[in-house]
Amino acid sequence: MTDFFKNIAPVKYEGENSTNALAYRHYNKDEIVLGKRMEDHIRPAVAYWHSFAWEGGDPFGGRTFDRPWFDKGMEGAKLKADVAFELFDLLDAPFFCFHDADIAPEGDSLAESSKNVRTIAEIFARKMETSRTRLLWGTANMFSNRRFMSGASTNPDPDVFAYAAGQVQTAMQVTHELGGANYVLWGGREGYETLLNTRIGQEMDQMGRFLTLVVEHAEKIGFKGQILIEPKPQEPTKHQYDFDVATVYGFLKKYGLENHVKCNIEVGHAFLANHSFEHELALAASLGILGSVDANRNDLQSGWDTDQFPNSVPEMTLAFYQILKAGGLGPGGFNFDAKLRRQSIDPADLLHGHIGGLDVLARSLKAAVALIEDGTYDKVVQDRYAGWNAPEAQAMLNGERTLAQIAARVEKENINPQPRSGQQEYLENLINRFV
Amino acid sequence: MTDFFKNIAPVKYEGENSTNALAYRHYNKDEIVLGKRMEDHIRPAVAYWHSFAWEGGDPFGGRTFDRPWFDKGMEGAKLKADVAFELFDLLDAPFFCFHDADIAPEGDSLAESSKNVRTIAEIFARKMETSRTRLLWGTANMFSNRRFMSGASTNPDPDVFAYAAGQVQTAMQVTHELGGANYVLWGGREGYETLLNTRIGQEMDQMGRFLTLVVEHAEKIGFKGQILIEPKPQEPTKHQYDFDVATVYGFLKKYGLENHVKCNIEVGHAFLANHSFEHELALAASLGILGSVDANRNDLQSGWDTDQFPNSVPEMTLAFYQILKAGGLGPGGFNFDAKLRRQSIDPADLLHGHIGGLDVLARSLKAAVALIEDGTYDKVVQDRYAGWNAPEAQAMLNGERTLAQIAARVEKENINPQPRSGQQEYLENLINRFV
Amino acid sequence: MTDFFKNIAPVKYEGENSTNALAYRHYNKDEIVLGKRMEDHIRPAVAYWHSFAWEGGDPFGGRTFDRPWFDKGMEGAKLKADVAFELFDLLDAPFFCFHDADIAPEGDSLAESSKNVRTIAEIFARKMETSRTRLLWGTANMFSNRRFMSGASTNPDPDVFAYAAGQVQTAMQVTHELGGANYVLWGGREGYETLLNTRIGQEMDQMGRFLTLVVEHAEKIGFKGQILIEPKPQEPTKHQYDFDVATVYGFLKKYGLENHVKCNIEVGHAFLANHSFEHELALAASLGILGSVDANRNDLQSGWDTDQFPNSVPEMTLAFYQILKAGGLGPGGFNFDAKLRRQSIDPADLLHGHIGGLDVLARSLKAAVALIEDGTYDKVVQDRYAGWNAPEAQAMLNGERTLAQIAARVEKENINPQPRSGQQEYLENLINRFV
Amino acid sequence: MTDFFKNIAPVKYEGENSTNALAYRHYNKDEIVLGKRMEDHIRPAVAYWHSFAWEGGDPFGGRTFDRPWFDKGMEGAKLKADVAFELFDLLDAPFFCFHDADIAPEGDSLAESSKNVRTIAEIFARKMETSRTRLLWGTANMFSNRRFMSGASTNPDPDVFAYAAGQVQTAMQVTHELGGANYVLWGGREGYETLLNTRIGQEMDQMGRFLTLVVEHAEKIGFKGQILIEPKPQEPTKHQYDFDVATVYGFLKKYGLENHVKCNIEVGHAFLANHSFEHELALAASLGILGSVDANRNDLQSGWDTDQFPNSVPEMTLAFYQILKAGGLGPGGFNFDAKLRRQSIDPADLLHGHIGGLDVLARSLKAAVALIEDGTYDKVVQDRYAGWNAPEAQAMLNGERTLAQIAARVEKENINPQPRSGQQEYLENLINRFV
Repeated sequence: MTDFFKNIAPVKYEGENSTNALAYRHYNKDEIVLGKRMEDHIRPAVAYWHSFAWEGGDPFGGRTFDRPWFDKGMEGAKLKADVAFELFDLLDAPFFCFHDADIAPEGDSLAESSKNVRTIAEIFARKMETSRTRLLWGTANMFSNRRFMSGASTNPDPDVFAYAAGQVQTAMQVTHELGGANYVLWGGREGYETLLNTRIGQEMDQMGRFLTLVVEHAEKIGFKGQILIEPKPQEPTKHQYDFDVATVYGFLKKYGLENHVKCNIEVGHAFLANHSFEHELALAASLGILGSVDANRNDLQSGWDTDQFPNSVPEMTLAFYQILKAGGLGPGGFNFDAKLRRQSIDPADLLHGHIGGLDVLARSLKAAVALIEDGTYDKVVQDRYAGWNAPEAQAMLNGERTLAQIAARVEKENINPQPRSGQQEYLENLINRFV
Repeated sequence: MTDFFKNIAPVKYEGENSTNALAYRHYNKDEIVLGKRMEDHIRPAVAYWHSFAWEGGDPFGGRTFDRPWFDKGMEGAKLKADVAFELFDLLDAPFFCFHDADIAPEGDSLAESSKNVRTIAEIFARKMETSRTRLLWGTANMFSNRRFMSGASTNPDPDVFAYAAGQVQTAMQVTHELGGANYVLWGGREGYETLLNTRIGQEMDQMGRFLTLVVEHAEKIGFKGQILIEPKPQEPTKHQYDFDVATVYGFLKKYGLENHVKCNIEVGHAFLANHSFEHELALAASLGILGSVDANRNDLQSGWDTDQFPNSVPEMTLAFYQILKAGGLGPGGFNFDAKLRRQSIDPADLLHGHIGGLDVLARSLKAAVALIEDGTYDKVVQDRYAGWNAPEAQAMLNGERTLAQIAARVEKENINPQPRSGQQEYLENLINRFV
Repeated sequence: MTDFFKNIAPVKYEGENSTNALAYRHYNKDEIVLGKRMEDHIRPAVAYWHSFAWEGGDPFGGRTFDRPWFDKGMEGAKLKADVAFELFDLLDAPFFCFHDADIAPEGDSLAESSKNVRTIAEIFARKMETSRTRLLWGTANMFSNRRFMSGASTNPDPDVFAYAAGQVQTAMQVTHELGGANYVLWGGREGYETLLNTRIGQEMDQMGRFLTLVVEHAEKIGFKGQILIEPKPQEPTKHQYDFDVATVYGFLKKYGLENHVKCNIEVGHAFLANHSFEHELALAASLGILGSVDANRNDLQSGWDTDQFPNSVPEMTLAFYQILKAGGLGPGGFNFDAKLRRQSIDPADLLHGHIGGLDVLARSLKAAVALIEDGTYDKVVQDRYAGWNAPEAQAMLNGERTLAQIAARVEKENINPQPRSGQQEYLENLINRFV
Repeated sequence: MTDFFKNIAPVKYEGENSTNALAYRHYNKDEIVLGKRMEDHIRPAVAYWHSFAWEGGDPFGGRTFDRPWFDKGMEGAKLKADVAFELFDLLDAPFFCFHDADIAPEGDSLAESSKNVRTIAEIFARKMETSRTRLLWGTANMFSNRRFMSGASTNPDPDVFAYAAGQVQTAMQVTHELGGANYVLWGGREGYETLLNTRIGQEMDQMGRFLTLVVEHAEKIGFKGQILIEPKPQEPTKHQYDFDVATVYGFLKKYGLENHVKCNIEVGHAFLANHSFEHELALAASLGILGSVDANRNDLQSGWDTDQFPNSVPEMTLAFYQILKAGGLGPGGFNFDAKLRRQSIDPADLLHGHIGGLDVLARSLKAAVALIEDGTYDKVVQDRYAGWNAPEAQAMLNGERTLAQIAARVEKENINPQPRSGQQEYLENLINRFV
């Protein structure tokens, strides 16, 4: 045991009347809701990067966190791994996620970098023999090093494409070996800073090829997990090719990958793309590409990705409603892609962030389940579309009528449709009963 | 002749030293640039709705324009047609565009409404015998009447879907008969106000079916023009299914329509979707769905669609560059989807808006042509991607290498790519030489 | 009794287990919280304009509501007044608010318009003899008529300034006679559409003079209520001079009115100005200009003022916290500046909107009170600033030290301040216990 | 001479037909416009921080620039100073600006840090004996070090306030000794990350006191330059107390500093605050607090401060128009608060950025002068307000009429003002003649 968390005791469920700031008040992992353990619905994961690699910097200031593993190379990486699993244990976290660059320092060559990653992954493997924490997903960081400044797979330099392929091979291999349930690609630099120096078509073809290589490689090595793309509209780029769920869907269709790749949807990225989170979930579900979730929130007044811990039960309830209606996330889960505020410099703050986030998810899950079990809401929506069940409506929808036939019927029957209330306020009040 | 424009004389090209506010200073329709008449590059159109049907209202105030054809039913519609063609003549406009509801008042039934539309279309046909102004495109307004408050093709009520089909039949028919070069669908209400009462998947299927019906109908009646969808992210809805070019592409792919339908891209809608206009053009061109343009601009500080006349030569130069590199707009053109400001209540203001817009387009076209003819810029971009011409790079891109093979090569050759300057400032300065 | 609301029964408090959609579940007006009746904390008001004058139009479509009083001149205005007081009674609303133009049709002259307003105001007065509903505030609509298209007090035409003065005189007079607790000025057009035709300094001087005239007139007629300005950054204008609370404060200081005028702060306007609502409340309180509240919410993805009914308990709890810490709103209150969605066309929707809004306010008030009564939160914040209680800190703050003296002390004592955790996640979790 | 810029020759004015990318095409410092040398109008400055201290990092990636002075302590600082003055010479820059932390590394104590700053300032002083480059302004960086993570003057810890005072003392002293024309305060952390842990009123009082100390100290040491505050709405904070010009004005009025402090207005900060740059200039001029300018631009699609070099002549022309009408910037100037894009890693890029920026400013200045000298535009605006010159209008404006008197006159004379066109499109076209 390191002494990083000092005397902090393991976090337990104490019920909603507890005033212990380091206890769960709503997250009760074994509680059965809608036929499943709460933990199996949520599948929450701790993000290695924000919790252990982020230093508390921002564009106007440097590191504020004072972590004993910073600036210490592989020794630091090992200490970091120790502390990480201590946090997983304290939180009783069933999952974690990482980028290759989060867990091990970069070497002087790809070979050395890969070796470092494999070394730490082996340490993870040993720790996972005694810890219950599993790997939700792994990924490769192909955006921080300056070699990626103009993109990874979309770089004008084919050597960078090649380098990225090498990096993914290792990251996917260790993900596979650690039993990762998913492998994620986040295209932080796959976009452009200025269209002036960019050939969009060429770059998207490069990216389509890269993703195809990844899908084929996964199959070859027997990786059965989901391959996920994480949409984000911009930042650090001016424009990212994975703008949002709809954009990713079109991209997958263009390159014939829509049956092989799904989306990892992040709350804050949905917001940056000017969508609600529940919209992105509902859309992905309707397109068959709902894979997993990056749980966090954005500040409503800041124009960049703030990656704060989720704290809105009303928002997350609508999200869980969409997820439950879609049949759940399968091998996906809720990764806390959330970082402490730069001023939250104490080790205990790492616990406050995750405890608060988990309690919000638990309350929201329970609220969404109650909403579904009550049934009133689903009935209202079902009734709204009931007209489409009529035979003539189905005939139109199924392609059994031409435009001219439909038009003729309107004139003949003098159809003059009258509007019906959309009942938004009533529905909002109804939802508010459950949150 | 009506006396609406009183003593305003036809607008002529007078060159850039003219101080006549009612002359063109840059738009010289017969000037040859890049091998084509300026007018044939731009194909500018006057929008009937903004110029003749809009009343100068906004969410906090009513009509400010005092047009003699308002509130006068079919008589007003005829006077409006007279004035419209007078404006087309004054401006020497080669094209115009309209919605059915712009040109004729709605009747008590679809049949009567259609009859009104056909009546005015016949007047147009007669006028077009003596005027040189052609029809760039027609469309049906399926968003203003309260029957469409919950959508047209995406309405929960199938009767509204049917009614919309009837309306499109007539709008497309008159467009066809008037020789329209394109037919546009703009889904003003095809989206939702609240996800709470909405089934996204069901509504998109309805919309896919509707568009299929339209495409099939066009073929049946022998309409050879382009079918166009106009992306817009929101407004009046909270979310519109035609969010942006990327979204429309995915939608077309899902319903197998990507070879039948293209995009009509609007400057202001691009901006609302958090894209630059040139991005949307470049993306559509790379996806093969660049069809036509709605030329306008949005106020940079207002969060809604302001539909102002274009007035930025730097912005439009980048747009023309993309269009010229894509081989032009074909049967598409530049429709001025731009309305006078609510305080611009004089008839002369209609001329100022269009003259300013056309001069900006002409300057921008000439600047883009000069940029291309100079060649320096294209060369810089070409050089940036030159590495991809190497055999091994092509092999990667064409699928002749696996991820493992590429990774092995990186390790073997110890590839360590070094970044090269993106030269953004240099390129911006270079562009500025031409605007 | 009109038959507008048909069989809808008066809305009663039934407790949070009620599933009656037309009952209050949290708003229990006589319940004592923090020593005062709930109703006296909230002082909720129905807005005449949204509830009775708004027609359901938006920039892309016309009227959707089908109210029997539309288009019926003074007869319609009387029917509207009947229905309004029926709604007040059904909701048991203690207050309402109105613009002059909401209650009576405009006449052919200012004199006739004023007469119409007075006529309806007299009807109100008679109704208020038997109804318990009081007037929270009145105001003059100086933005809808085309005469105000370039502003009211800030118009380039001094006759419009004069006309506006005439209109305010009547609106303030009837507000006074009806016992209004406040008089509000909302400068919908006091700003500009383009800076190109605008002299900012001249227009602000006009506005400063106008406000001074209003303050002096109020004193002269013995009106004891608060005079309030409602900040809004834009819309319908590109820029409004009352941008936000900070801007209004500077404006009041410039014209020496900071002791005579306070702010009516609207949730949605705060959001449009890129502030949280609680920020605007806290700022106004610290500047001594917190007057009243327009309760609503904006859609998070729409770039314009959506004026929806409030439905977020977390948001409103933070607002009530600020209000309670400031000692309450005094003669102010919570006006529901909220309109039904355009698709909510049924009379019952008017009740759903207000019931949902009131229940949200009631829950939020109770949560804020519990937070304050618990005391933990206040204590954390107090401790954070405790260092400023030390004598030397007070000396710095009170002006008893010069920069040089302070600098000398830092060097002498080698002061090297160490950062302390800002505890944001802990505080967010703490707040979440109460909402 | 270092070899950093290798063979780059001094940048000369070569006229607009030059195709030399490293020449000025419009900036001709000695050209007389509106009676003054171009350089004396613009007073351009190179920003030390962006040009020499920024490393090319962003929130998702580290350093991309490879500067020989990085990580080399005081030796690096001296090399950096050498290169800086070489750039000033190459550009023939009349001014530069710096933060204390830009020029010298931080020491282990305030005393050591101050000593480092003074050491480099002395090197500057010697260089300025042979260079023509002067100091436009200096400032203290009170936001990067972790001690300032919760603010400088607004910190909950009074020791941080004191430390900041010590830092300002030195920064102001060296600014004074180097002949700086202004001293700037930019409150990067003077705001909050969460209102939950913040007392707005207390913090603003601290900031008011700090600014008062600075003003008094400047007077004491005989510093005659302008004291400037730079408004910014947010970032890195969620909310900054210096939100925009209007907010700063109210703040200055509250603490009685409006005659002692002016604004340094940044293009990108105006945009982040949802204002046009010319708005902020016009407003500051009308309030008497226009001091200086930070010239840059923001990307229109990115929600954060991108600090790009200015490249829009239309935008900057409107800015120069406001500045010229206000009588110029006096001792202020145009500081290029603009950084190279992260991918612009070559030394030559530093020249491209500044050359492009200066040429844009020069073209814009000339365009604004031509607009003013033409006179048509000013006349239109003057005519628009001409009605206010009438005696009765002046009487209203000057406080010689009461509201009741004005209202009585409206009724008596039956005043019914008719709207006049705002002529926005005409004015936009008119402006476009000059850009």
